[in-house]
Amino acid sequence: MAPPAGVPGADSARYSRRVGGNPDKAYEGAWVDGTHHFALRVFYEDTDVSGIVYYANYLKFIERARSDMLRAAGVDQRAAFEAGEGYFVVAEAHIKYRQPAKLDDTLVILSEVRAVRATSCVIHQRVMRAGEILAEATIRAAFLSAEGRPRRQPRSWLATFERLKKKGTR
Amino acid sequence: MAPPAGVPGADSARYSRRVGGNPDKAYEGAWVDGTHHFALRVFYEDTDVSGIVYYANYLKFIERARSDMLRAAGVDQRAAFEAGEGYFVVAEAHIKYRQPAKLDDTLVILSEVRAVRATSCVIHQRVMRAGEILAEATIRAAFLSAEGRPRRQPRSWLATFERLKKKGTR
Amino acid sequence: MAPPAGVPGADSARYSRRVGGNPDKAYEGAWVDGTHHFALRVFYEDTDVSGIVYYANYLKFIERARSDMLRAAGVDQRAAFEAGEGYFVVAEAHIKYRQPAKLDDTLVILSEVRAVRATSCVIHQRVMRAGEILAEATIRAAFLSAEGRPRRQPRSWLATFERLKKKGTR
Amino acid sequence: MAPPAGVPGADSARYSRRVGGNPDKAYEGAWVDGTHHFALRVFYEDTDVSGIVYYANYLKFIERARSDMLRAAGVDQRAAFEAGEGYFVVAEAHIKYRQPAKLDDTLVILSEVRAVRATSCVIHQRVMRAGEILAEATIRAAFLSAEGRPRRQPRSWLATFERLKKKGTR
Repeated sequence: MAPPAGVPGADSARYSRRVGGNPDKAYEGAWVDGTHHFALRVFYEDTDVSGIVYYANYLKFIERARSDMLRAAGVDQRAAFEAGEGYFVVAEAHIKYRQPAKLDDTLVILSEVRAVRATSCVIHQRVMRAGEILAEATIRAAFLSAEGRPRRQPRSWLATFERLKKKGTR
Repeated sequence: MAPPAGVPGADSARYSRRVGGNPDKAYEGAWVDGTHHFALRVFYEDTDVSGIVYYANYLKFIERARSDMLRAAGVDQRAAFEAGEGYFVVAEAHIKYRQPAKLDDTLVILSEVRAVRATSCVIHQRVMRAGEILAEATIRAAFLSAEGRPRRQPRSWLATFERLKKKGTR
Repeated sequence: MAPPAGVPGADSARYSRRVGGNPDKAYEGAWVDGTHHFALRVFYEDTDVSGIVYYANYLKFIERARSDMLRAAGVDQRAAFEAGEGYFVVAEAHIKYRQPAKLDDTLVILSEVRAVRATSCVIHQRVMRAGEILAEATIRAAFLSAEGRPRRQPRSWLATFERLKKKGTR
Repeated sequence: MAPPAGVPGADSARYSRRVGGNPDKAYEGAWVDGTHHFALRVFYEDTDVSGIVYYANYLKFIERARSDMLRAAGVDQRAAFEAGEGYFVVAEAHIKYRQPAKLDDTLVILSEVRAVRATSCVIHQRVMRAGEILAEATIRAAFLSAEGRPRRQPRSWLATFERLKKKGTR
């Protein structure tokens, strides 16, 4: 019997395929032609007794994608929060569930900046599985001061979102 | 002003650094010298009002690592479940929390097979951040039939776990 | 009745206030004038590092309220699921977040049936704190067969929803 | 008292059983003979694809019970946290899973103070369903300063825990 795939020392071909490829580096998504791509796998924690991903967990998936999108765009949410400048909250979410995701599925979240205003922005997000749309969401995020009041986003963030929006709607 | 990092078309160096590298491919961990490595990032969903990762969420992190560990070892949990052969449940978990994880941290879960029995196995897992142990867990997983009774694991899985255990304790 | 042993300071007044009042009975909401009321407390698990309830968790809160609403209306989801008749999934959710909920808050979810169709229904839900609306959601739930296809709800459920809807819009 | 409007079939008997019984009041547990009782219902969010409650969610259940236990004992965690005095974190958790909980189950968490030290305490917790133990946990909670260092608990809390411990081990 051949050694099982994935056993250290037994499967150098597989290991070398992921060179680049450091297993200690957390996944990061990327912008591709004005759309941010973020892939994830569905784990037990995401499913429920009906055998599919629990509806609230799609909001977790798309939030991960938005956080990664900001990171990839050079927007440092944590630094802004820790400096007391403020933070984004979701002010409105509209989501349509078309097909259910299941355990072990690989999903890709596609995110696009649709609108940018001084204190908010609108992001459109699709949850994809092998080219099929499973869910589609429109999220309005508002920037709040440390005290929780609407506040203008940092100027550099606005410029970044504007540029991303142009890319996205070209 | 330089274009923001991560904007498509603006940062080809960064993009090429992630060659291997397809953003639509979900992260997968790997076995390195008898230890399974699984990296993840901490998102908002994982934290709580005290500013750190909520204690139950470490169990989610280490379950993701175990699922990935099985996948990397060629153990197909989903197929076994769907074929009605059975599934693993956690029978016992013991976890020590040493240092808190925070938003945006990259964590690496290190997992090792410690003991293998006909109907169960014991996995030792460490949650690491930059070489520091944040939490340490010992998990006893039991294999159950579709009806929920203890059952012998598939023979090929036992062989796989035995081999992984030898690697881990060499 | 004697005050229970072991209560710090023997707080019989407090204990007697909860007569009815068996601590081993899980909370159940109730219909009041065509609106279903469901109260819950915010725990650590619900909050995130920004100090407020994480946005996806409102969907958990309102799902608890809908499940309780069905139970209180005599609709047995679990029996229907286990009998292979089918189950409800959320097909669309639209939620506006107005004010943040915080740790230890008591929230009351107010739910109303807005529309009833053969294979779906629309529920309007408000998350209240002391008379203030924190969030407002419209949920379209679809009934699916065990195979995951749209299916007519059981006749008795339709009748129940119709009656609840009439009450709600009076 | 007239039956409430809007209740299907005007279920006055059921409604009157919960008199006391304000649906807008969140559930609170109670101390009974040195043991704290906290009941809850299992919702979809708690389950996973294997049809049972996901293992990490038991830690959420028992944390709700501990928070309620502190509240019932007059320990105000939120006030201490907001005043910058500090907060409890779990330093160690050991849990045995005996029988699975399922959708719609009513669970009762029984909690007892087992040991009290200046900067920590040990709580024993059982997750019960109709008299059967589903899971059993021992939790060591440590009190930390706002900066995250071990700190003596407020004196009045220590006295409270000591009293509760004596009751619990009588």
